[in-house]
Amino acid sequence: MGDMSKILEGMQENAAKLQAELESKTFSVKSGGGMVELSVNGKGEVIDLIIDDSLMDDKDSLQILIIGAINDANKMVLQNQQNSALGMLGSMGGMNPFGAK
Amino acid sequence: MGDMSKILEGMQENAAKLQAELESKTFSVKSGGGMVELSVNGKGEVIDLIIDDSLMDDKDSLQILIIGAINDANKMVLQNQQNSALGMLGSMGGMNPFGAK
Repeated sequence: MGDMSKILEGMQENAAKLQAELESKTFSVKSGGGMVELSVNGKGEVIDLIIDDSLMDDKDSLQILIIGAINDANKMVLQNQQNSALGMLGSMGGMNPFGAK
Repeated sequence: MGDMSKILEGMQENAAKLQAELESKTFSVKSGGGMVELSVNGKGEVIDLIIDDSLMDDKDSLQILIIGAINDANKMVLQNQQNSALGMLGSMGGMNPFGAK
């Protein structure tokens, strides 16, 4: 098997590992001092949303707190995906196609 | 200026255009027959969330409908980002670094 085949095979394996890793992670974001709690996995899929009863009387605050929680969660997911992708590239040092150590 | 510099400059310009384009787009997602309406831009940032008054008496349904709207919106944003990125690559045909037409 040629070097390029090995590199590509390694990249595919690492990409699959990364996807599985992201799916298994869970992030929890709170807004309004915990009155809204949003849980997402590493791929950004929402798993759970818990709204405090006290917010059911205040739609304006509820809407604002949910928007904040979604945006915070998305930032967290994106940052984690970038870190994981960099980590994956780092772990490929042994077969870096650009030749650096 | 060498060919590679031209290619890289073109890629940077296109990436900046793509980011601006994504920011200016708005997607609106409805769930529960419009009882929850979520608006996001092309970067996935939530711009607005509108909850129907009738849902303020039914927290379980509210939570489920919001989760559904967020997940639908995220899918829409991701698909649009992928299409836009492909479109960007397509428009670079004249300076394809891999040499194909």
